[in-house]
Amino acid sequence: MLGAARRSALNIGVRVGARRTLKSVTSGIFSTKITRSNGGDRVRLYSSKVVPLTAETYADKVKWNPEFKKLDDEDIKYFTSVLNNANDIITDEQDLLFYNEDWMRKYKGQSQLVLKPRTTEQVLEIILYCNKNKLAVVPQGGNTGLVGGSVPVFDEIVLSLANMNKIRSFDDVSGILKCDAGLILENADNFLAENGYIFPLDLGAKGSCFVGGVVATNAGGLRLLRYGSLHGSVLGLEAVLPDGTIYNSMHSLRKDNTGYDLKQLLIGSEGTLGVITGVSILCPSRPQAVNVAFLAVSSYEAVQKVFVGARKELLEILSAFEFMDDKSQILTARHLGLEHPIESGQYPFYILIETSGSNKDHDDEKLETFLGNMMEEGLVDDGIIAQDETQLKSLWTWREAISEASTIGGGVYKYDVSIPLADLYSLVEDTSARLKEAGMVDIDDDSKPVVEAIGYGHVGDGNLHLNVSVREYSKAIEEVLEPFVYEWIQNKKGSISAEHGLGFQKKNYIGYSKSDVEIEMIKDIKNHYDPNGIMNPYKYV
Amino acid sequence: MLGAARRSALNIGVRVGARRTLKSVTSGIFSTKITRSNGGDRVRLYSSKVVPLTAETYADKVKWNPEFKKLDDEDIKYFTSVLNNANDIITDEQDLLFYNEDWMRKYKGQSQLVLKPRTTEQVLEIILYCNKNKLAVVPQGGNTGLVGGSVPVFDEIVLSLANMNKIRSFDDVSGILKCDAGLILENADNFLAENGYIFPLDLGAKGSCFVGGVVATNAGGLRLLRYGSLHGSVLGLEAVLPDGTIYNSMHSLRKDNTGYDLKQLLIGSEGTLGVITGVSILCPSRPQAVNVAFLAVSSYEAVQKVFVGARKELLEILSAFEFMDDKSQILTARHLGLEHPIESGQYPFYILIETSGSNKDHDDEKLETFLGNMMEEGLVDDGIIAQDETQLKSLWTWREAISEASTIGGGVYKYDVSIPLADLYSLVEDTSARLKEAGMVDIDDDSKPVVEAIGYGHVGDGNLHLNVSVREYSKAIEEVLEPFVYEWIQNKKGSISAEHGLGFQKKNYIGYSKSDVEIEMIKDIKNHYDPNGIMNPYKYV
Repeated sequence: MLGAARRSALNIGVRVGARRTLKSVTSGIFSTKITRSNGGDRVRLYSSKVVPLTAETYADKVKWNPEFKKLDDEDIKYFTSVLNNANDIITDEQDLLFYNEDWMRKYKGQSQLVLKPRTTEQVLEIILYCNKNKLAVVPQGGNTGLVGGSVPVFDEIVLSLANMNKIRSFDDVSGILKCDAGLILENADNFLAENGYIFPLDLGAKGSCFVGGVVATNAGGLRLLRYGSLHGSVLGLEAVLPDGTIYNSMHSLRKDNTGYDLKQLLIGSEGTLGVITGVSILCPSRPQAVNVAFLAVSSYEAVQKVFVGARKELLEILSAFEFMDDKSQILTARHLGLEHPIESGQYPFYILIETSGSNKDHDDEKLETFLGNMMEEGLVDDGIIAQDETQLKSLWTWREAISEASTIGGGVYKYDVSIPLADLYSLVEDTSARLKEAGMVDIDDDSKPVVEAIGYGHVGDGNLHLNVSVREYSKAIEEVLEPFVYEWIQNKKGSISAEHGLGFQKKNYIGYSKSDVEIEMIKDIKNHYDPNGIMNPYKYV
Repeated sequence: MLGAARRSALNIGVRVGARRTLKSVTSGIFSTKITRSNGGDRVRLYSSKVVPLTAETYADKVKWNPEFKKLDDEDIKYFTSVLNNANDIITDEQDLLFYNEDWMRKYKGQSQLVLKPRTTEQVLEIILYCNKNKLAVVPQGGNTGLVGGSVPVFDEIVLSLANMNKIRSFDDVSGILKCDAGLILENADNFLAENGYIFPLDLGAKGSCFVGGVVATNAGGLRLLRYGSLHGSVLGLEAVLPDGTIYNSMHSLRKDNTGYDLKQLLIGSEGTLGVITGVSILCPSRPQAVNVAFLAVSSYEAVQKVFVGARKELLEILSAFEFMDDKSQILTARHLGLEHPIESGQYPFYILIETSGSNKDHDDEKLETFLGNMMEEGLVDDGIIAQDETQLKSLWTWREAISEASTIGGGVYKYDVSIPLADLYSLVEDTSARLKEAGMVDIDDDSKPVVEAIGYGHVGDGNLHLNVSVREYSKAIEEVLEPFVYEWIQNKKGSISAEHGLGFQKKNYIGYSKSDVEIEMIKDIKNHYDPNGIMNPYKYV
């Protein structure tokens, strides 16, 4: 805990009796036209270089499976007969790029064919044909994944859900939304907002990612602290399995205890068991009052203490608790070309707290009392509370733009890990030290391969994002980072993938988080439902 | 909606400006020593008659499977060597009764052996032996199930988890509790309360049911509206599978996206896939302010409107929304021997609203404003807000004692269904009409086999409990009720089991809620993990 002497230096505004008012955001900072960032939008800010082929970069790790059939003209003829719309079949090399390259520009497949079915029946015919002919398939949503799971490794056919993007139904008494898997998350949330509801998940890539994709990857995101995981909120799925089964549990019921909850296997299966084509999900009422506070603290210990306090005092209105280190804020300030709201670099850690409730006055009072208490205890050094919707969005930008800012040098190695809270940030410190030892890192020196190792994430979920911002992807960097990072996590009994999934990147590292028994059981399920292994091969397990 | 004229007759206390105070509970009503009822405690209030053998009652529906081995002395000798404590093996006929009979006194098995292991390794040795020798096993928790799932049908061995009842660990920063499956739910919640946390599930049987049992049956209960289903809050499980696998995912992580979430198959599997021996679960912070309001309304339409209003206005503090019909309250008043807090019989429906939050003043204001609005709109006719903890518990009694009160005549046919909200109560009306038509029902005439058909449940979850209180279990009653009730639910696309599970009672009715494809997939999973079918046979699917 900070000493009492420290507090005298704080610049935290006027105290009025037991209530304190934090300094408000000066309007100047927020007059820019920054909107909420879409980390997953296919913006290429810093890099236009050619993405290397995954098959070449990782030639030592992965080989083409000769049991798969090579695509030929007969196949394309068949698919043409199924889709009967020229726009739904892509074979042009330039057009294929979008589907072959991942968002980080780290992985690149060599697919010669993208299929964009419009109905579940078309998906069924495609999958049946592929399974019969042993043609490998990569189901693809918005292609915003961060572990190379959504792009081919070799010549797999890409099955894009982009054309299946309708809302099927919405019940405004129960809040149950049924939609196609290809509906863009932001479109779903906007629709729900009009009806007084909210999608129980939010993430930076909301403008690009699909509802089916977030379910297939069991995405976590920014609202998990409040609304829990998709395993709880998804009520039903429609999916096409390799043997031609259309699994359909798209019920309109919050509770149904009749038989094993099979849809749960598909949540987080990353396209390795089948193609999710429809989602039924329970959506909460949209909070009418939202507050955001952005705080500066002097240590990671203070971050933890503020979190414990927030969970107790803000309890039912706490909807996000995010932390960011100073290096993440420096990179983000450069990326946005903006001044940091609380003089970045001055404090080692920043916290973003969001509250959501039904009564603005009550929430204001709770938040102000809480922040007052935290300052009195010397835990919070400086802070801002957003005064309107624009400021609220702008403050969120300093958290949400980090993902994009991490690519400032041209690339990023991303590690998305769960670790017990006390040890969460040590991973960033230890990784930074290791990169420094290797003489690889300098934020300003372009001759060094690494820009910076930064840490941020969802404290409330014990979920850290360690981003190593690089000027190039190289074996040398990767060898400094891996398996070091994974071994570090294993030692702390953490998870090597809290929310990003396994994909291609972490396929070989699952053993750091799962026991041999669990891995065997996972492989057994994979073989049970996809004995030919055509679904998203070379990945996951 | 009720007309304005109606409101003049309301007896709802003093109005003060925009705020209104509902009449308080008179202390007399609450001076009795009623405590929160444990519906699942093995209290036998009304019935001491002999429970008929399931094998005889349902001789036309179920036959002993000759592929199973009959228990012999060699087997008992082996189990004795494994457990090496005489208290852990029960063979005495009188002592076996507790494990053979279900709580409703409707089902009775003929097991000759109860095993009560103390370690996961002992469970493993038992299951391995049983699987090798084709001895059928019923894993049993607190035996408070309501569909005959927790007792044997024929001579299956009962494997009770009662001796595995320890808290393994608790992390008071993350709120993650790890415990043995046999820990009593109330003990878990009391422990959590001491640490400022709450178990994310509550139900009437809390004093008897086990944590492992609520997970194995995916119990819903009274807090689901607030904390969601166990599919979201259970973080990991330890379980012994028939092939001798010890599945262990008892991680301390809120998020882990490395591989299929296999534990989900066990949640709600009712002992048919393996024996759950340990549970890791995420527990929320315990709310410091709890309010309960008990309301009277004039129609089921009003119940729905009050619910929609509550979800909007009480949003983040709403923790329960239960409804009860007048008949349920009449039976409960007789059972408790108490005067109803709002003159039972005068209003057709009652509502219990619970709020939980961090600030009592804020919650009081929200609740009072909300109730004032509801009265102003003519939706609420009368109401009470509990003034202290004793009154709060007493008001809950009028909801929680219904289950026990339903057995006032000696027995009860229980239907636990999910139906879209608009149609929820029609099932009770239609069932009542059908029983009347058959001349079977009279609340006062002991010559009639049926006392009353009552309805109550979790409006927030679309979950109705239809209890048909009977003076005897008989084929004649059952034929009036079934398949009528199941067909009715199927027509409304509901679930024949919202939270009680399938067990023995609903095994043959799963087709009313699940498609043939789903049933085939469920059977396939069952065969995959338990090819000999030894785990809780004659039930589920």
